[in-house]
Amino acid sequence: MRLGLDIGGTKIDAVVLDDDGGVRAHVRIPTGTGPEAVVTSAERAVREVVIQDGSELDDIQTIGVGIPGMVDTETGHVHHAVNLGVADLALADVLGERVGARVRVENDVKAASLGAYHLLQLDGAAALLNLGTGMAAGVVVNGVLWRGARGGAGEIGHIPFDPFGAVCSCGQRGCLETVASGSGLARMWPSSAPLPALELFDAADAGDPRALQVRRTIAAGVASALRVLVLTVDVELVVIGGGLSNLGDRLLAPVREVLTEWEHDSAFLRSLELGERVRMLPPHLSAAAVGAALIGSTETLDAVEPVA
Amino acid sequence: MRLGLDIGGTKIDAVVLDDDGGVRAHVRIPTGTGPEAVVTSAERAVREVVIQDGSELDDIQTIGVGIPGMVDTETGHVHHAVNLGVADLALADVLGERVGARVRVENDVKAASLGAYHLLQLDGAAALLNLGTGMAAGVVVNGVLWRGARGGAGEIGHIPFDPFGAVCSCGQRGCLETVASGSGLARMWPSSAPLPALELFDAADAGDPRALQVRRTIAAGVASALRVLVLTVDVELVVIGGGLSNLGDRLLAPVREVLTEWEHDSAFLRSLELGERVRMLPPHLSAAAVGAALIGSTETLDAVEPVA
Repeated sequence: MRLGLDIGGTKIDAVVLDDDGGVRAHVRIPTGTGPEAVVTSAERAVREVVIQDGSELDDIQTIGVGIPGMVDTETGHVHHAVNLGVADLALADVLGERVGARVRVENDVKAASLGAYHLLQLDGAAALLNLGTGMAAGVVVNGVLWRGARGGAGEIGHIPFDPFGAVCSCGQRGCLETVASGSGLARMWPSSAPLPALELFDAADAGDPRALQVRRTIAAGVASALRVLVLTVDVELVVIGGGLSNLGDRLLAPVREVLTEWEHDSAFLRSLELGERVRMLPPHLSAAAVGAALIGSTETLDAVEPVA
Repeated sequence: MRLGLDIGGTKIDAVVLDDDGGVRAHVRIPTGTGPEAVVTSAERAVREVVIQDGSELDDIQTIGVGIPGMVDTETGHVHHAVNLGVADLALADVLGERVGARVRVENDVKAASLGAYHLLQLDGAAALLNLGTGMAAGVVVNGVLWRGARGGAGEIGHIPFDPFGAVCSCGQRGCLETVASGSGLARMWPSSAPLPALELFDAADAGDPRALQVRRTIAAGVASALRVLVLTVDVELVVIGGGLSNLGDRLLAPVREVLTEWEHDSAFLRSLELGERVRMLPPHLSAAAVGAALIGSTETLDAVEPVA
C-alpha cells in the first residue's frame, strides 16, 4: 500500500494508490504551522486516508511526502519551508516513527511534476511549470524525475530576463518569478479581493488598460518560461500547474497570443511550436500527492535518477 | 575500429579511437564548400586517418560525423549547414557508400559535448557551452547525450535575456548569442584584425574604456548562460568550448568577476557556486571528432537517449 502526502501552506492532500497507480482513497485536511503542527497534521492525514481506504496503519508499505522548501532527499530533512513556519525538520524520521512506515520526502513541485506525468499518461520528456506563490518547474524524462546534479533542476523562476525588472525575493532583478507567479501578480495588481487573479482577469476582460497590461506581462513571463524549458531541456510538453493554472484557458489564451506575436519576427521560434506544446493541469488532480506516493515507493533513490 | 569526423567551416578533424576510447590516430585537412566538396573532403579525411592509423578501409566498423547545422539523426540528413554551403545533404548515405561503413551524423556541438565529457573523464550531469560563431550547449548525463524531445536540447543561444538588446539572427531580440559568441563580439567590436577577440582583450587589458565595456558584456552573457544551464538542467559542471574558449583564463576571469558581483546581492545565487562549476575546454582536444566517433559506435540510437 503506497501512500502520498502533499503538505501545502493551508492544507494536506493524502492519497492511497492502488497497484496500477490509480487513486484508491483521498482526504484533505488543514495544515498547522510550525514543525510540531506540521508533523501532527501529516500524521492525522495518514491515519484518515488509511481509514478512508478501509485499511490499517500496518498495511502501509511506503509513504512519500511532497513539501515546499529545500529538501534533502537522502535524509528526508526539510529546510526553509517558510510558508509552513519550518526552519529545519527531520520529517522522514519523525513522521516515519509515528506511523511505522518508511517515509521519503521531496520538494512539492518536483513531486507534482511526477504526479502530473503519471496522471496525464505522458511519455518522453515533459515538464510541470508551477505558477504558485513562486515559479518553479519539474522535469520528468521517460517517467523518471530529473533532479539535477544538486537537486536544483527546474528552478527557472530565478532566471532573470529583464535587467530593468523588479527585485526578486532571491536578490536578483527581473527574474521570471517576479512577473509570472502569484507573488508577481500581487505586486503588479495590489488587491484585497479574495481571488486577486480573478479580479485582474475580469478587469482585463472588461477593458481596464492597467489590467490588460498586467495580464500581458504575466503572459509574457509564462511564454518566456516555456521558451526557456524548450531551449534547454527540450521537453515535448509543458503542463502548467499551481494556483494560477486554475485560470485555465483564460491564462493560456493570452500566453498563446504573446507567442504568436513573437513568432511573427522569428521563423526559428515558429519552428519550436511552443503554443502547441503547452496545456493546463486539470484542477483537483492531487498531482503532488500522487507523485509523492510514487517517489515514496521507489526501491532506491537511484531509481528516480536518470541513469543511462 | 571506430572513426570520428568533425566537419567545420574551414577544416575536418578525423580521429580513430582505440578500444578504451583513446585517440589512436588524428589528421586535420581543409574543408571544401558545397555538398559535393564536403563529401569529398570527408572521404579524404577518412582515407587519410586510416593510413595514419596503419589500417585499411575494411577495418572501419563505424563512423560518426559531427557537423554544424540541423541534423536528422535518424536518417543522417544535414540541413541548413550555412557555413558549409550545404542546404540539404544525405551525408550518412552518401559517405557511407563511398567508404563502405555505417555512418551516423550528429550536430557538432552535441558531438563535442559528448567528446569533452569523455576526454575530461566527467561523470554525472555536465554541459559543454560552445562559444563559436553562435552559442549553443550540449548536455550529457551519466555519459549519455541528452538530445531532448525534438533534438533541440541545449539551444540556449536563442534565449533572450535583454528586451532592449540587439536583433539576433534568429529574429528575436537580445538573445544570449547576440553578446556571448564570435558573431556577438564581431558586432560589438568591429575589426579587421586576424584575431579580433585577442585584439579586444588586449585593448581591455590596456584600459580602453570601450573594450572594457564590450569584454564586460561578453562576460555577463557567458555568466547568464551558466546560470541558465544550472537553473534548468542543473549540470554539475559547464565546460566552455568553441573559438572563444581559446582565450582561456582571460575569458574565465571576467566571467567569474561578473558572477561575484551578482552574488553580492543574492544569497540564492551564491548558493549555486557557479564560479566553481565552470572550466575551459583545453585547446587541441578534438572533442567533436572524439564525440562523433562515440556516437557513431553506439549500437542503436536509443542507446544515446536518456532512458530510465
